[in-house]
Amino acid sequence: MPELRKDYVTDTWVVFSTVRGKRPQESAAQGRKTPPEKCPFCLGHEAMTPPEVLAYRKDGTPNGPGWWIRCVPNKYPALEVEGEVHRRVTQLFHSVNGVGAHEVIVETPDHEANLSQLSDFQVQEIITAYKHRYNDLIRDKRFKYILIFKNHGEKAGASISHPHSQLIATPIVPRRIMEEVAAVQRFHEQTGGSCIYCEIVETELEEGKRVVSENEKFVAISPYAARFPFETWILPRAHEMAFEDLTDEERTPFARILKDVLGRMHGILNDPPFNHYIHTAPCDRKESRYHWHLEITPRLTETAGFERGTGFYINPVMPEDAAQILREGGKPPASM
Amino acid sequence: MPELRKDYVTDTWVVFSTVRGKRPQESAAQGRKTPPEKCPFCLGHEAMTPPEVLAYRKDGTPNGPGWWIRCVPNKYPALEVEGEVHRRVTQLFHSVNGVGAHEVIVETPDHEANLSQLSDFQVQEIITAYKHRYNDLIRDKRFKYILIFKNHGEKAGASISHPHSQLIATPIVPRRIMEEVAAVQRFHEQTGGSCIYCEIVETELEEGKRVVSENEKFVAISPYAARFPFETWILPRAHEMAFEDLTDEERTPFARILKDVLGRMHGILNDPPFNHYIHTAPCDRKESRYHWHLEITPRLTETAGFERGTGFYINPVMPEDAAQILREGGKPPASM
Repeated sequence: MPELRKDYVTDTWVVFSTVRGKRPQESAAQGRKTPPEKCPFCLGHEAMTPPEVLAYRKDGTPNGPGWWIRCVPNKYPALEVEGEVHRRVTQLFHSVNGVGAHEVIVETPDHEANLSQLSDFQVQEIITAYKHRYNDLIRDKRFKYILIFKNHGEKAGASISHPHSQLIATPIVPRRIMEEVAAVQRFHEQTGGSCIYCEIVETELEEGKRVVSENEKFVAISPYAARFPFETWILPRAHEMAFEDLTDEERTPFARILKDVLGRMHGILNDPPFNHYIHTAPCDRKESRYHWHLEITPRLTETAGFERGTGFYINPVMPEDAAQILREGGKPPASM
Repeated sequence: MPELRKDYVTDTWVVFSTVRGKRPQESAAQGRKTPPEKCPFCLGHEAMTPPEVLAYRKDGTPNGPGWWIRCVPNKYPALEVEGEVHRRVTQLFHSVNGVGAHEVIVETPDHEANLSQLSDFQVQEIITAYKHRYNDLIRDKRFKYILIFKNHGEKAGASISHPHSQLIATPIVPRRIMEEVAAVQRFHEQTGGSCIYCEIVETELEEGKRVVSENEKFVAISPYAARFPFETWILPRAHEMAFEDLTDEERTPFARILKDVLGRMHGILNDPPFNHYIHTAPCDRKESRYHWHLEITPRLTETAGFERGTGFYINPVMPEDAAQILREGGKPPASM
């Protein structure tokens, strides 16, 4: 059973999962793409994964071909779905057993595809699957938070190159989310009812210089204190707490802006390794004010001892320059 | 001028330094070692660096050969030493201009050396230089924190392979230090005067299973919630707030345990890339209780979208297993 442990001193949590160490690493270690004949996410290889929890297909039977989106439990899960949540706390040692969910959302049957080059329909279907799996898992009261994320490229932690996203449900609310929720609440109190993310959207649209892209429902910006070169956030213009409330009307513009931003990065930064993840409200929404968004962080630089020692980041590219390059095209700085 | 910016929402700080993007990256990009003829840290190449701020030599003149330890300003500094500290704060935007110091401590004239294989004398001299530069810079009241750290190997962020450490002085106290100082203070109040790090040392020595190495003055442990495989902390047994108070009597056992732990990692993990850094009290000691220590974090796994999205870490190696392997020898898990 995996185990979550808290640092003796700070609120840093670590998931210990020895099964994660058993993932095949051949392709990653050798710097190559997963060979299609060994790819568990290709059509016809459905038996290579655990049985599916969701698939979009017109004809055919579960766990056979014919699908265009397929969701399966991760074969090497960071957290395990069976069992109850127990906390063990002594003066120095604080642990929670590793109950959770860890799933894979296969984004397309096409082994060689790239999210930004899929059809609008297909990207909408990915988003629908994100929401579908989220809404299924949130009913499980053991889960306090559900993170949907994507690792693209080896350097970003992908061990299989076939396009896929992942979902991890955790038995505690992660630290970064807690910090954001607390800050939203504080801002709400200090301003007599405003949302800090609504302020960000409004102010950044006014200033303009950090805007990467926008449409009728969403805005993409290089955040003022971007941790990484070309980090980009996509936020809904309207004050909406949770991604899983996304309406059918919003799905099309969300798919469009996600494709647009990833397409700009793909072209200008030459298909960079990247992560993206959705920050939405904690599962128990009662106490939380929030404004959901998606963060995209390309992996163009290494963090080093200074970052590990301080929690600061060093970014060699100003967000204003990154936004201009992504917005207008052009070349990134020669070395980053 | 570099600039520090705080995230709109959380207390995450980012150093924007476009000059960092101008570092030569040839060797790193090509996965090779720095060629000795191009190495600014080799004997006879003193003119390739800014003028030295400290050197240990018997004969010879400043900025000439004859040294065994040499400290110079970083040619591509993250922060700049000239200027006053100004804060600019509006509702969403919070910045501080990038005043600070960024220095390099060249650990040996030997281009091919490895810290763990240097003589005891040489490692003691490195530690003396750490302390010397720290005590010089702490007199500058613009600096609120001074981090001494080392990046070893490209994957750990080293752009030059010649053995060296670095020092960065910052105009604000980093978040990780603030969190630790606050936790030490809280524990002190809750327990009526105990130090949480003293408790860690005592409890881990009692339990034994996470101890990697120890001597009369220092203990090395795999922390209970290690973020990374084989992460190891070295702590003084005695309650000492600040590294820079290290006595001559402590220097020898500190050098010995550092060499010992790095030597174990070098042998067992096959010269892994790693970072180490010293956590000491903030420059203004008046308000802070603390217990200094050194953290070593090998770079054997990649962090990915889950870590970025949550602030959690995933570690496939239990600290108890890592400690046993480092303590007793043996092979690390096949894939991590």
